[in-house]
Amino acid sequence: MPWPGDGTPDDPTDVESRPFPRAEYRDRLQRVQEAMARHAFGALVVVDPANLYYLTGYNAWSFYMPQCLIVPAHGEPHLFTRAMDAQGAHYTAYLPQSQIHGYPEDLVQRPDVHPFGWIADRAIEVGLLPVGVDARVAAETDAHFFSPRGYLALLSRLGQGHLLDSHELVNWVRVVKSPLEQDKMRVAGEIAQQTMRIAVDSIEVGRRQCDVVAQIQYSQALGARKLGGDYPAIVPMLPTGETAGTPHLTWSDLPLRAHEATTIELAGVHHRYHVPLARTVSLGRPSHDLDRCAGAVTEGLQAALERMRPGVPARDVHAAFTEVIGRYGYTKASRLGYSIGIGYPPDWGEHTISLRPEETTVLKAGMALHVILGMWMDGWGYELSESVLLGDDGPERLAPLPQELVVKI
Amino acid sequence: MPWPGDGTPDDPTDVESRPFPRAEYRDRLQRVQEAMARHAFGALVVVDPANLYYLTGYNAWSFYMPQCLIVPAHGEPHLFTRAMDAQGAHYTAYLPQSQIHGYPEDLVQRPDVHPFGWIADRAIEVGLLPVGVDARVAAETDAHFFSPRGYLALLSRLGQGHLLDSHELVNWVRVVKSPLEQDKMRVAGEIAQQTMRIAVDSIEVGRRQCDVVAQIQYSQALGARKLGGDYPAIVPMLPTGETAGTPHLTWSDLPLRAHEATTIELAGVHHRYHVPLARTVSLGRPSHDLDRCAGAVTEGLQAALERMRPGVPARDVHAAFTEVIGRYGYTKASRLGYSIGIGYPPDWGEHTISLRPEETTVLKAGMALHVILGMWMDGWGYELSESVLLGDDGPERLAPLPQELVVKI
Repeated sequence: MPWPGDGTPDDPTDVESRPFPRAEYRDRLQRVQEAMARHAFGALVVVDPANLYYLTGYNAWSFYMPQCLIVPAHGEPHLFTRAMDAQGAHYTAYLPQSQIHGYPEDLVQRPDVHPFGWIADRAIEVGLLPVGVDARVAAETDAHFFSPRGYLALLSRLGQGHLLDSHELVNWVRVVKSPLEQDKMRVAGEIAQQTMRIAVDSIEVGRRQCDVVAQIQYSQALGARKLGGDYPAIVPMLPTGETAGTPHLTWSDLPLRAHEATTIELAGVHHRYHVPLARTVSLGRPSHDLDRCAGAVTEGLQAALERMRPGVPARDVHAAFTEVIGRYGYTKASRLGYSIGIGYPPDWGEHTISLRPEETTVLKAGMALHVILGMWMDGWGYELSESVLLGDDGPERLAPLPQELVVKI
Repeated sequence: MPWPGDGTPDDPTDVESRPFPRAEYRDRLQRVQEAMARHAFGALVVVDPANLYYLTGYNAWSFYMPQCLIVPAHGEPHLFTRAMDAQGAHYTAYLPQSQIHGYPEDLVQRPDVHPFGWIADRAIEVGLLPVGVDARVAAETDAHFFSPRGYLALLSRLGQGHLLDSHELVNWVRVVKSPLEQDKMRVAGEIAQQTMRIAVDSIEVGRRQCDVVAQIQYSQALGARKLGGDYPAIVPMLPTGETAGTPHLTWSDLPLRAHEATTIELAGVHHRYHVPLARTVSLGRPSHDLDRCAGAVTEGLQAALERMRPGVPARDVHAAFTEVIGRYGYTKASRLGYSIGIGYPPDWGEHTISLRPEETTVLKAGMALHVILGMWMDGWGYELSESVLLGDDGPERLAPLPQELVVKI
């Protein structure tokens, strides 16, 4: 399949089939290898599907089986995946077939052998993984989909002391978004905005939670601006009534009831780039507590967004919010938000910047953050969020909708 | 929230809010502890969200953060999760608050400390995890969402040699479905059947892939028989045209084209129980190759289902299929199917029985299998599947639809 935008003979333009031009991937690889050099890593084992997509474009629902990308200190990365997935990996990944290795089907889900043993052997054989007394191989040892058995199989080939933690090296390279990535996020923002409008409209007394979700999922796939929607890393969440006091409940087929509030958390997604968004809807006049909390949080959000400028440490954004809600007598124990961009199930957070008191990372233009203000109380809750792209002059709201509690009477 | 069906004073009937009565969970725990005793495990660390749900009913999108259930050799299990999720865990889990432990928010995504260190310390403190020279703790070391860093944190508290692999102990307890579980699967089957009908209807020349997915996802959430649909562990997959030769592509916003075939793989889901289903649709007269392959696979499927009886080793089902397609000159390298039941992203397979030559497990009544016949060729592909419940007299098709290639002209 052809590549867009490079203008080189092997890269004719076909914008529809490939989300990014080759040059973008070359730049990403270079920045990862520069970071590897700073840590003297001889190779990097990348397992997080979001990092595989970032570095190669590889995009398939194959991450439920062991797979990885191995990035050498110099030269091109190689993809290792199940044989049936290796065969079609070139439909999405820019890699030539010589850099794609499929492990045999009979290694799948066996108690005695593990695909990561095969992967390590092959990678050593083709010279990708250094071995010996000085070898320093880093791996994503806290990534989803890298199991202890996979790790132990890799370790058995490399030897104790030669397998290090990458400390989310690729994730940190991803924090500043390129202009092309920012465009993807703006499309995702429109999908999020449109879908939240539909979700809020469909919240009605007597309607079942699953009916609301049906509307949300329809809109998420449809997309916006004639550009399709992609699947979200997290399904729509609808904590309702009493259960709104707990953040990660999904949905049931119970009907929505009068005098209850529902929090909606969803994302618009385009080419794996996520824009999450949360709002709260009250069916009937809200309680005094809910109304007061909503007011404080909206004011706190304003303060947080005003504080968000390039050059400011991320923890200052947290401080601006807590200062405001503190005046109303509220506290919030959990972080206020996190860096966003590419996402795969089960998480759309980037696992880098968190808006919390310990976060000393200094904000830069091109960063993208989900400021999610969840107040989970005893038997009720309130959520409000904004996803923003940080520009030189401050945050650009990616899904600008009213920030008040929605009251439907 | 009340419990259905037990008839005891603390468990009044409320069928809507809890999928299973307490007695069902007591039985499941007992069978797991019996299996633990056979291996002399002093404790079992359960990480797979499907196993958490099976043993306690706990159901929330919190598995992107470290969490586990620790089952002692005797007595009640305890749940360990992030503080914000621990607070509302009782909405779905049957456990009293004294058996739910929330780790502090400041342990989230830190490079220096890991929640599994806190979990291990607390579990040792409350006497759940045995320590000492004879301690034998088993953990799900190939489960999704158990990272190497989590494993190493746990190992550091228990000591080398005391942390063993559970070899999917809980998954194997799950293979025979209770009558109540079978009822959930029948509802899921109706959702799958209805959704596949809608998917096939919506496949049309010029319609975008994402528009078809919008219809599928709408129907998946709506459910059937007035019972709601739950989220699938895998999003709808639509490998189309040339890319139908690769199994795990998701969708794009490209329009469907005449003279191309699309394979559809989706699931109906109810209370986390999955019934997956695959069909192939040809827009226009199929190629000779596709038509011939479809005929051979349908005949092979009949042979496989006829061979599927209690008392038969699972590998015989594989042999029956390969014998038929071999007569047509086809082979299939990958397994022919797998055990199904509860599923969480990223996989609806149970990680137990595989229909392949090495599988000696003897089939029993109450097992549920997805027989998925994917033929991934060079530049084209064909898929057909059936999800079945095995009864004394043979397989019950959970989503009975015609088994032929669908041709739309």
